[in-house]
Amino acid sequence: MRHTSTRHTSRTSRSRLLTGGALLAVLTAGGLGTVAANAANAADSPAPAAASASAVSGPAKGELTRTTHLTLAAATEAAQAAVDAAEKENQRVSVAVVDRNGNTLVTLRGDGAGPQSYESAERKAFTAVSWNAPTSELAKRLEQAPNLKDIPGTLFLGGGAPVTAQGAPVAGIGVAGAPSGDLDEKFARAGVAALGR
Amino acid sequence: MRHTSTRHTSRTSRSRLLTGGALLAVLTAGGLGTVAANAANAADSPAPAAASASAVSGPAKGELTRTTHLTLAAATEAAQAAVDAAEKENQRVSVAVVDRNGNTLVTLRGDGAGPQSYESAERKAFTAVSWNAPTSELAKRLEQAPNLKDIPGTLFLGGGAPVTAQGAPVAGIGVAGAPSGDLDEKFARAGVAALGR
Amino acid sequence: MRHTSTRHTSRTSRSRLLTGGALLAVLTAGGLGTVAANAANAADSPAPAAASASAVSGPAKGELTRTTHLTLAAATEAAQAAVDAAEKENQRVSVAVVDRNGNTLVTLRGDGAGPQSYESAERKAFTAVSWNAPTSELAKRLEQAPNLKDIPGTLFLGGGAPVTAQGAPVAGIGVAGAPSGDLDEKFARAGVAALGR
Amino acid sequence: MRHTSTRHTSRTSRSRLLTGGALLAVLTAGGLGTVAANAANAADSPAPAAASASAVSGPAKGELTRTTHLTLAAATEAAQAAVDAAEKENQRVSVAVVDRNGNTLVTLRGDGAGPQSYESAERKAFTAVSWNAPTSELAKRLEQAPNLKDIPGTLFLGGGAPVTAQGAPVAGIGVAGAPSGDLDEKFARAGVAALGR
Amino acid sequence: MRHTSTRHTSRTSRSRLLTGGALLAVLTAGGLGTVAANAANAADSPAPAAASASAVSGPAKGELTRTTHLTLAAATEAAQAAVDAAEKENQRVSVAVVDRNGNTLVTLRGDGAGPQSYESAERKAFTAVSWNAPTSELAKRLEQAPNLKDIPGTLFLGGGAPVTAQGAPVAGIGVAGAPSGDLDEKFARAGVAALGR
Amino acid sequence: MRHTSTRHTSRTSRSRLLTGGALLAVLTAGGLGTVAANAANAADSPAPAAASASAVSGPAKGELTRTTHLTLAAATEAAQAAVDAAEKENQRVSVAVVDRNGNTLVTLRGDGAGPQSYESAERKAFTAVSWNAPTSELAKRLEQAPNLKDIPGTLFLGGGAPVTAQGAPVAGIGVAGAPSGDLDEKFARAGVAALGR
Amino acid sequence: MRHTSTRHTSRTSRSRLLTGGALLAVLTAGGLGTVAANAANAADSPAPAAASASAVSGPAKGELTRTTHLTLAAATEAAQAAVDAAEKENQRVSVAVVDRNGNTLVTLRGDGAGPQSYESAERKAFTAVSWNAPTSELAKRLEQAPNLKDIPGTLFLGGGAPVTAQGAPVAGIGVAGAPSGDLDEKFARAGVAALGR
Amino acid sequence: MRHTSTRHTSRTSRSRLLTGGALLAVLTAGGLGTVAANAANAADSPAPAAASASAVSGPAKGELTRTTHLTLAAATEAAQAAVDAAEKENQRVSVAVVDRNGNTLVTLRGDGAGPQSYESAERKAFTAVSWNAPTSELAKRLEQAPNLKDIPGTLFLGGGAPVTAQGAPVAGIGVAGAPSGDLDEKFARAGVAALGR
Repeated sequence: MRHTSTRHTSRTSRSRLLTGGALLAVLTAGGLGTVAANAANAADSPAPAAASASAVSGPAKGELTRTTHLTLAAATEAAQAAVDAAEKENQRVSVAVVDRNGNTLVTLRGDGAGPQSYESAERKAFTAVSWNAPTSELAKRLEQAPNLKDIPGTLFLGGGAPVTAQGAPVAGIGVAGAPSGDLDEKFARAGVAALGR
Repeated sequence: MRHTSTRHTSRTSRSRLLTGGALLAVLTAGGLGTVAANAANAADSPAPAAASASAVSGPAKGELTRTTHLTLAAATEAAQAAVDAAEKENQRVSVAVVDRNGNTLVTLRGDGAGPQSYESAERKAFTAVSWNAPTSELAKRLEQAPNLKDIPGTLFLGGGAPVTAQGAPVAGIGVAGAPSGDLDEKFARAGVAALGR
Repeated sequence: MRHTSTRHTSRTSRSRLLTGGALLAVLTAGGLGTVAANAANAADSPAPAAASASAVSGPAKGELTRTTHLTLAAATEAAQAAVDAAEKENQRVSVAVVDRNGNTLVTLRGDGAGPQSYESAERKAFTAVSWNAPTSELAKRLEQAPNLKDIPGTLFLGGGAPVTAQGAPVAGIGVAGAPSGDLDEKFARAGVAALGR
Repeated sequence: MRHTSTRHTSRTSRSRLLTGGALLAVLTAGGLGTVAANAANAADSPAPAAASASAVSGPAKGELTRTTHLTLAAATEAAQAAVDAAEKENQRVSVAVVDRNGNTLVTLRGDGAGPQSYESAERKAFTAVSWNAPTSELAKRLEQAPNLKDIPGTLFLGGGAPVTAQGAPVAGIGVAGAPSGDLDEKFARAGVAALGR
Repeated sequence: MRHTSTRHTSRTSRSRLLTGGALLAVLTAGGLGTVAANAANAADSPAPAAASASAVSGPAKGELTRTTHLTLAAATEAAQAAVDAAEKENQRVSVAVVDRNGNTLVTLRGDGAGPQSYESAERKAFTAVSWNAPTSELAKRLEQAPNLKDIPGTLFLGGGAPVTAQGAPVAGIGVAGAPSGDLDEKFARAGVAALGR
Repeated sequence: MRHTSTRHTSRTSRSRLLTGGALLAVLTAGGLGTVAANAANAADSPAPAAASASAVSGPAKGELTRTTHLTLAAATEAAQAAVDAAEKENQRVSVAVVDRNGNTLVTLRGDGAGPQSYESAERKAFTAVSWNAPTSELAKRLEQAPNLKDIPGTLFLGGGAPVTAQGAPVAGIGVAGAPSGDLDEKFARAGVAALGR
Repeated sequence: MRHTSTRHTSRTSRSRLLTGGALLAVLTAGGLGTVAANAANAADSPAPAAASASAVSGPAKGELTRTTHLTLAAATEAAQAAVDAAEKENQRVSVAVVDRNGNTLVTLRGDGAGPQSYESAERKAFTAVSWNAPTSELAKRLEQAPNLKDIPGTLFLGGGAPVTAQGAPVAGIGVAGAPSGDLDEKFARAGVAALGR
Repeated sequence: MRHTSTRHTSRTSRSRLLTGGALLAVLTAGGLGTVAANAANAADSPAPAAASASAVSGPAKGELTRTTHLTLAAATEAAQAAVDAAEKENQRVSVAVVDRNGNTLVTLRGDGAGPQSYESAERKAFTAVSWNAPTSELAKRLEQAPNLKDIPGTLFLGGGAPVTAQGAPVAGIGVAGAPSGDLDEKFARAGVAALGR
């Protein structure tokens, strides 16, 4: 394969103007060094690994990209907030947080939530982060494209809400178990709202 | 449960001194802004989304983390290099690249490679990135912990090699189909070596 | 995440006023001791483990909850009653009983029942206990929420009936194999009716 | 089927002398009423559903049994404690809590934990609660019964610890991702220790 | 369990008048012995195992039932006839024969048949034998009961035909790969027609 | 491919001298008619379907074979007997009965049995009926053929016992959940012993 | 079953006039020998294995057939071209190439493509090669045959395009992740167009 | 992607000297044309599609490769021969034929064969064709590489035999159900021997 990684990198870079894709940032040498410098100054964030960036012997800068995720602490906080919101209304739900890569970060099976709620929550979260939209809105899109719902791992029922950072999806929160998808989604939004405070 | 999310952030930060975990960098406000500033200067990397970081209304900085991945272009190049290395020795192999989150980035089913090679390659890549070591070395660890090999998704056969950036695993390359695991791993290493040039 | 576990316990307790969720009862110290006292007096039910409750060194009372299930004997009796009801009408069916956690307690594959009936019965039972309603009624809800049927493990065909204790679902009985869902559900209800006599 | 549920109930009751089985309590009428009475006095725990026990029209008392579970709040607290314990030692792990019925209550995918850790944690938790013993001890039992590890859902690697209430298993906590199973299990035990305080 | 197997047997026997269920025959002692006697006289069918029926020490006669199947030779012949019928019309199809228990007896992947045809044929066969009707007719029933098609293992597309013996289904033949379900079903019927000659 | 179906039938017939295979009986015209005649005389077993054998328009006699199964009533009785035997020794187990075709007839999840016991019981039953031997004996065969245990669906742990009719396996009973495989198998044998009385 | 293998060969041969089936060519002795002769003269294509065709001791010529596939190099090139086409329009997609046998040859997970895109691309490719048509057209066929979409492995959403050689399908290219199926399919067609230049 | 398909083709061609890989033949223009010419003369093999090769508008010649398979007729004949060989020794077995791509061509479930035999046969066939060796020999290789047997889809038990054409594997035949792997493999070899006569 003879393609120049340079050409590819530049293309990839141009496509940074993302409007719904995942939050990505190509690591240019300067940028990374600067992060390291700043990080070294931050009391809680020494990040010495990054500081040694100039000695890297693995992939080149242009060969690396970064994806943004919720920390586990944040994901847990959001999930718990969704559970709490449901409890306030005496609803029994399960909650899941899925990252932009489709991997589940957190699951919480609610006390007394129906057995169908656990996987349902996971799928709603997956669906919301996949299209960066609440699943209640996505369900409406089925009028135009009914077979979207045949994509493995998805569930087009209200109850999923995306978590976005700078306009790009970084996670999805899914709630299931309440009597209606609208209620589920209200709790999912409460989970999202718990972030960024 | 008593912790505050503040305390959590600092703990998470202290654990930046990773020695085998995934490459992570907490996004502190200063660091991100600086990245954006640098990126704006880089001709090929405008990254305006990052530039607007101060207006973020989603998760707070301390709630986000980043994971480093090979770009698709780099992953494809590495995979192709592994295929090429095998072809030079008249070996028919399949190749897979799996990222640190366990998601497959690239698969290449070699012309004439055995049917078992495809999933085998994927599992070797998964195993190598999971423990940040070549699968030939990991196979030796089974003497002490034979049941490691019962972990779903793994395969303890030579042929998997980790890709590391600053000492942390970012991907695994798996090769399968050659007459021996040693040969497979030679080709996987050729894939790793194609990076960073 | 800011809540204290104390607050949580009380919240959880307040939500005991369940109206369709699973039957739960928080174990307060006094309640448990009293159960033990009563049980100790019952000839057939010494329950000494419960009697030693005051010496517990594991989870605290507020950290435990209980879910109510059919005993295996009761579940078997209900399943058998459903089979018998079908046999009286010369129908060949399979029957399953699933608990509120979604776990199958009993399956009975009917002599000569179609091969599709076995898993069908299990799913109907799962569906009935998930929403605490007969599957024939649940099927009607699809008019409003057609994608409910995409939730894994469910089947929206007549033939599933919930078993409730104090208004809360404790199990579902599913029957499949008769020419119509109405018939299947008649037999499932016969299974439910066999309980509590 | 002509068996009398009475005979069965008494047998079931006699087997209350459990020594490693799940924590169960047959609901005798008196016991339940008493629980209700006590619960009604507890400010935070009205439990009116139980109070109306005498009007039950579903299964009879002898047809119901109860299983004890961690509340979601407690399960989350234990899981978080395990994550915290790992973080203190700069280890990146995933954690799972599984109840005695084998259903997963909580999962937490650690920042930077290997991709294999998520399902690994779940299986260790499942294994620990299945046999009510730490998985490091269970792994030793394989010398006598090597094929135990072929039971679906299990993983015989250190890192799983049971949660017991009155000597009976109510949950399992599984941790995976640290360099050794011993470390994983240390963190799992920290999760168990967070309960009952 | 106190039920009398006798009562059950008689009930089961009464339901011999099956009209769409599987072909079953309760083994009464006399009947079995007689079979053995006849078999012993048949040059090609000595069946000495059956001859020793009077010395049975396992289940009693009333505890055994028999299901009727195509022999492998017959199932292969039917499948081959379906392939041949398709070849005559230059159609490339795959064929499957599934027995009344839902187990696949024979699969034939046609030269050049589409990759979707293999599992499709198996499901059509399963569907036809489950309801003892051609799948083209079963597809019409979805108008009344649209969720029938959510039963695992089924496929409501023309191409499946039941094989019946004495009015009861003993197998299903499924064909897939032709441009229309009608064509597929024509070939499936050719497979059925190859039997009994 | 040169064989004629005629030759095949005779071959199939000659192999009736089974010594461990499933109980089969080729339906020769005479044999079947005689069964019908006898059955017609038996008060509880009219079997009129068989009586009309001469009018069959489906597969020919030589194209049909029969497999022998436990009736559901018998399978349930055996499973219940195994549960009862375990209860007498205060052991909590799950029980499964699988027929010679590998299909599960009955499952009973024991009150308080470990979550691993359910599928474990099913696999032991499957294994016992597959090789017509107790799984404790089959486990010993692994010394000669260790990879037998890699066959899907099997489990080589004590606790499975075959049910035989005339020397041929017709079902397997599997028990799991007791502290040892020997105990499990004792209960499985109790299940077998409940038959044929 | 009465056919002779001779007749079969001729039938199979006659059906070479394929109009949408896979590209197949029966290996007649003469044809193959000639290929060998020509190949032996071609500098880059010695193919000595074929040259020794006359000494074959395995299957006879008439027992072998050939299926045509994209080389891995070509499949990779097509997949890369689809990725490139998407990048030019700032779309983040995943791409898959599946051969006529349904086996995946290449997968490329796009930087920042939604997590649902990976399997979605694979299924679109599978669907396109199965029916030798773009999936946007196939989706329209659901009006006549809505249950086509229940065939395992398929996805009836725009984004899949077949690769044909001499009118027969040899591969499918699937793209997923763009805002509409039309866009996805535009990129898939770009992948197809990259071939044959 | 800048690589020249020419370079790739030559590399691929050089690797034609395969000694255990799949039988492949690159379609060079000249070679193919000649095949067409010869084929056109052969009464049973008109292959007009190949004759029009010069008008191809899809992939270029160098972008196509061919894999050799047993025809369905041959695969069926081989499978039947294996069944016949087993019947002669009164053994009840199932048989599968898997092609070099790992796809199952034919399965035959033997009358009275154990339920484990069906998937077992399929896996043995897959294993034999993957490594182009009898599974009895492959099982011995586990002494050096015990983890080979963890590769998905494989089974290292005697009973699988490869079918080779010109030294390269084109299919595997797997037999299971006899008392020993040696017997199974004897029957599998009989299946292989039925080819090429």
